[in-house]
Amino acid sequence: MTEGTAFGRIAIIGVGLIGGSLARAVRRNGRRTQIIGYGRNHLNLQRAVELGVIDRFETRLQDAVVDADLVVIAVPVGATAAVLRELAPHLGGETIVTDVGSTKASVVNDARAQLGAAFSRFVPGHPIAGNERAGIEATSAELFEGRSVLLTPVAETNPAAVAQVRALWESTGAQVLEMTPEYHDCVLAATSHLPHVLAYALVEALSRTQSGEEIFKYSAGGFRDFTRIASSDPVMWRDICLANRTQLLTALDGYRAVLDELSMLIRSGEGEKLIELFRHAKTVRDRNIGKNQK
Amino acid sequence: MTEGTAFGRIAIIGVGLIGGSLARAVRRNGRRTQIIGYGRNHLNLQRAVELGVIDRFETRLQDAVVDADLVVIAVPVGATAAVLRELAPHLGGETIVTDVGSTKASVVNDARAQLGAAFSRFVPGHPIAGNERAGIEATSAELFEGRSVLLTPVAETNPAAVAQVRALWESTGAQVLEMTPEYHDCVLAATSHLPHVLAYALVEALSRTQSGEEIFKYSAGGFRDFTRIASSDPVMWRDICLANRTQLLTALDGYRAVLDELSMLIRSGEGEKLIELFRHAKTVRDRNIGKNQK
Repeated sequence: MTEGTAFGRIAIIGVGLIGGSLARAVRRNGRRTQIIGYGRNHLNLQRAVELGVIDRFETRLQDAVVDADLVVIAVPVGATAAVLRELAPHLGGETIVTDVGSTKASVVNDARAQLGAAFSRFVPGHPIAGNERAGIEATSAELFEGRSVLLTPVAETNPAAVAQVRALWESTGAQVLEMTPEYHDCVLAATSHLPHVLAYALVEALSRTQSGEEIFKYSAGGFRDFTRIASSDPVMWRDICLANRTQLLTALDGYRAVLDELSMLIRSGEGEKLIELFRHAKTVRDRNIGKNQK
Repeated sequence: MTEGTAFGRIAIIGVGLIGGSLARAVRRNGRRTQIIGYGRNHLNLQRAVELGVIDRFETRLQDAVVDADLVVIAVPVGATAAVLRELAPHLGGETIVTDVGSTKASVVNDARAQLGAAFSRFVPGHPIAGNERAGIEATSAELFEGRSVLLTPVAETNPAAVAQVRALWESTGAQVLEMTPEYHDCVLAATSHLPHVLAYALVEALSRTQSGEEIFKYSAGGFRDFTRIASSDPVMWRDICLANRTQLLTALDGYRAVLDELSMLIRSGEGEKLIELFRHAKTVRDRNIGKNQK
């Protein structure tokens, strides 16, 4: 048993920002854990070996997962079902599988459909970390420090497997919380998926104005901050929007209702009600996000 | 004539983040310029004197502007008309007046109505700087370095007055651009006023969900960045929304059209079109905002 994790061999499927950062954090804590990478981009995998993020990589998924104690699936959620289908026949009888996908009900459904008996050893997970950057160069062993990792086990999930995945994440400095896949998808739809859609929509809307891209010349820090997440990976976010479609549409409807209300207040010049709404939002943000968490 | 500015005495009406930072920048450059503050909050003005931001303050507006070579109006745009009305009778025959308001057509209308013959010496201005913080403690002599200051003179505006205000802003390290009040209000509606409304709306929408404020526990860096501007001053933003109502509603309508389109694509599961829109927005942002401008 190595320091920080009980896993002797970990296969990371998808060595991007999250997969690569987890690998770095594990290696920082327990040098005897062997980390095997798998992915579609061999140049990226070679770079990951050069940087010391992974020990080696495999070019066939089955070679990566055979003999692994833990398989971490760190691919866009739209690719998760295909990866699970391909690796299922090659999983060892004790191998634990986890993922880092941004939606959980869809992933749980995929895993239940693809893993058969091994589904009890599948621990759905989601580290709330990462940013608009992507790729191996952006990875960091500190990415998860002080962040939350949400695990969403279901009735069939083996509690011992959950405990081992929890210990792995805690060794990275993260705080682990457990909840249902449905609650996860509801809160993440509102706090993450919706803001991404809103940011993409803002940049798109501005690019369609008469001034075209000239307009961005006059943007300031607030605009840069607001739209930063619109520089996120389009494929990843397409997958998330579709995988969590129902909850996202509910959040989007709630948002559009507030926007309609604001639009009406502005149109009719109801200054007092506008102040009231702005003040309430500011109070809620200042209380919950905190001025120190910039 | 002092270094950096030709003004021997400047009156700053409203010693907040912008007014106070301009005072600091002027004092850094030209020690012989005398800076008089005026505002409603005497404790704030006393603090500004203690911090060396202003030389002294007056408790009557007329005493602050009399003998001033330049009057800088740095109050919320909703208060500009009243300030202009009160100071107009006390302006010297050569005194230049400028402002820093976030909307320009409304301010030009107010100035035309209140200043009479002195309107030719009114130079409408807007430094694109500032953040969600407020008050004298947040002021900085460097706030305008590398930022844009937009001046929106009209047909009646004296070019010599424009040149002097331009020189003042350039001495703070800002880049000065000139445009019409209408173009200013159109681009700022899209790049600044709209994002503020969207950010307030997001925090408000989340606070209305079933999970209530519990939901903010699961927010990450993207959400914090996205909603930072929802911590801005509610009165200032109420004023801006109403003063630039027409342009803001146009921008808001354009935004809602994109949001409706996105909502439809998500609902009908049109993955390819979603990717296409996200990719276009990402490309536009990366090209125009720049990865280095984080």
